[in-house]
This record gives sequence, structure tokens and C-alpha cells, in this order.
Amino acid sequence: MGSCSKTDLAYIAGFLDGDGSLMMQIKRRNDNGRFRFMLTICMYQDSRHEKTLFWMKRKFRIGYISRRNDNITELRINGYKQVERILKLLKPYIKFKKIQTKILLKSAKILQKKKISEKDYRILVDNIILIQSENYVTKRKKTKEELLKVLELTP
Amino acid sequence: MGSCSKTDLAYIAGFLDGDGSLMMQIKRRNDNGRFRFMLTICMYQDSRHEKTLFWMKRKFRIGYISRRNDNITELRINGYKQVERILKLLKPYIKFKKIQTKILLKSAKILQKKKISEKDYRILVDNIILIQSENYVTKRKKTKEELLKVLELTP
Repeated sequence: MGSCSKTDLAYIAGFLDGDGSLMMQIKRRNDNGRFRFMLTICMYQDSRHEKTLFWMKRKFRIGYISRRNDNITELRINGYKQVERILKLLKPYIKFKKIQTKILLKSAKILQKKKISEKDYRILVDNIILIQSENYVTKRKKTKEELLKVLELTP
Repeated sequence: MGSCSKTDLAYIAGFLDGDGSLMMQIKRRNDNGRFRFMLTICMYQDSRHEKTLFWMKRKFRIGYISRRNDNITELRINGYKQVERILKLLKPYIKFKKIQTKILLKSAKILQKKKISEKDYRILVDNIILIQSENYVTKRKKTKEELLKVLELTP
């Protein structure tokens, strides 16, 4: 993001606060029954006005853009390193989603460790629950017990 | 907005682009059957996170904050002069809602004239239609013919 000015970053932080999501999930890998953690920055916009999402993608030099059936276009950024890099840049300007930002940054750090301990996994599960309670959630999410079960850890 | 930095303005512009509205309507006055034009800048947020809306209100030194029944808090700014002042400040940073911004600024200028001609009123009606076609509209709005009728002008 060498080409990103302070006002670009502040604009993107405002956009994220207004109509974006910071998410953390456990995804099961179908092939081997194992799981992975997923960190996501997501921005939404009416597909007629998706231009700014492409501008953000260029600024970030990362992310996937997809058009949903309901005429909403999404920009998604995954990957521990990428999410960490971008959130560090946006952090000074984020106002609403400060808590989610801090939790994702902490999780990204843990997830980039060479060896993740059982204690780490328990912290990651707590972080998912914390982010869920901060986000405006419409559908029911997994409980802490259910998440620990996915990881084959005792409650 | 003497205390508003460039990054404050860029943040607010991003927030407005992400989750705000720029609106223009004709409102009938009930008492005398006459009408007035209304220009509105509106920002929304989950009531649990309404703090940033209060921060914006302080920055703008204007606006009304109200909590809706669906747990959404709104910051509304009306008034031709106020809307003009704020949009002029935000304009350099707005990306999505550029067209709505330009139309509201043009309309604010007309509405502050001492004498508004019939030609002006027709331009204002066209501006309402233009803004509606740009905005993501869920409920049916008045057609151009209906708007002209409110103003007692022939189509």
C-alpha cells in the first residue's frame, strides 16, 4: 500500500465502519476432516456502484471481488498476513470496529506462529466468540462449546 | 468544522459512502397546503455503536440524532445552508455518491435564492428524480408528474 495516503486510509476505515465486516471463523477442510481458522475483512456495495471496491482492491493490491445474486458486490480479504498488514494500516482511523480490529490482529499473530499450542487454540475460540458478540449478527452462530468440539478440545 | 482534519473528513466521507444517504424530497406543509423542499444527509448505525454518530455530530456542530425501533441510530442533517457547508467539505473525499453530492449542492444553491422561478422549480424536480435513480431505492417514490402536481406545475 505504498500509494495509500492518510486520507485514503481514513476513507477506507470510514467505509469499513459504515458498511464492512471483520470476521473470524473456523472452517472445516472437507478433504481430511481437519479445520482451519479464517480471518476476513469484507466490504459491501450495491453492484451499480462497485467501482470504489475495485479502487480499494487496487490500493490494497489484494482481495477478491464477487457479485452476489442480490446485486451486492463484495470485496473480501483473507489470509493472516494480508489481514494483519491491512488492519495495521487502518487501525489508527477505525472508530466503531476498534475491538474487532484488536482481536483480529491478536489472532493473526497467533495463527502465524510455527507451533500453535492448545492454549492458543482456546484463545482463538474465545476471540471468535468476542467478535461475534461485537458484530451485528443475524444468523445463529456456533457456541463456544461447539467451536471447541470442532477443534476436538474439551470444554 | 474548524476542528475537522482532512482525515476526519475522509473518514466521514467513507462512512457516508458505505452506510449513509443523500436525499432530496418535497414535503407538504400541513397547515397551509404549501410545500417545501428538504435536503438531507443521513448516517446510520447499529444503536450499540452509535458513539461515532455523536462524534460526527460534534464535528459538524449540527444534526439530530434519533434511535429507531429497529435498533438503528440515525444522524440527520437538514437545512440548505448546513447541507451545503458540509457537502462542500466532504466533496473532495466522496467516491460513490459523487453524483448525489453535486445535485444536492446545485439544489441547495437554488433553494437559497431570494426568488425561485418556475424554471428553478422544474430543475429541482428533475434533481429529485436524478437522485432517486442514483440511490438504492426500496419503496416506490413519486414520479416526475406527481412531483410537478404537488408544485401545481403542468407536466
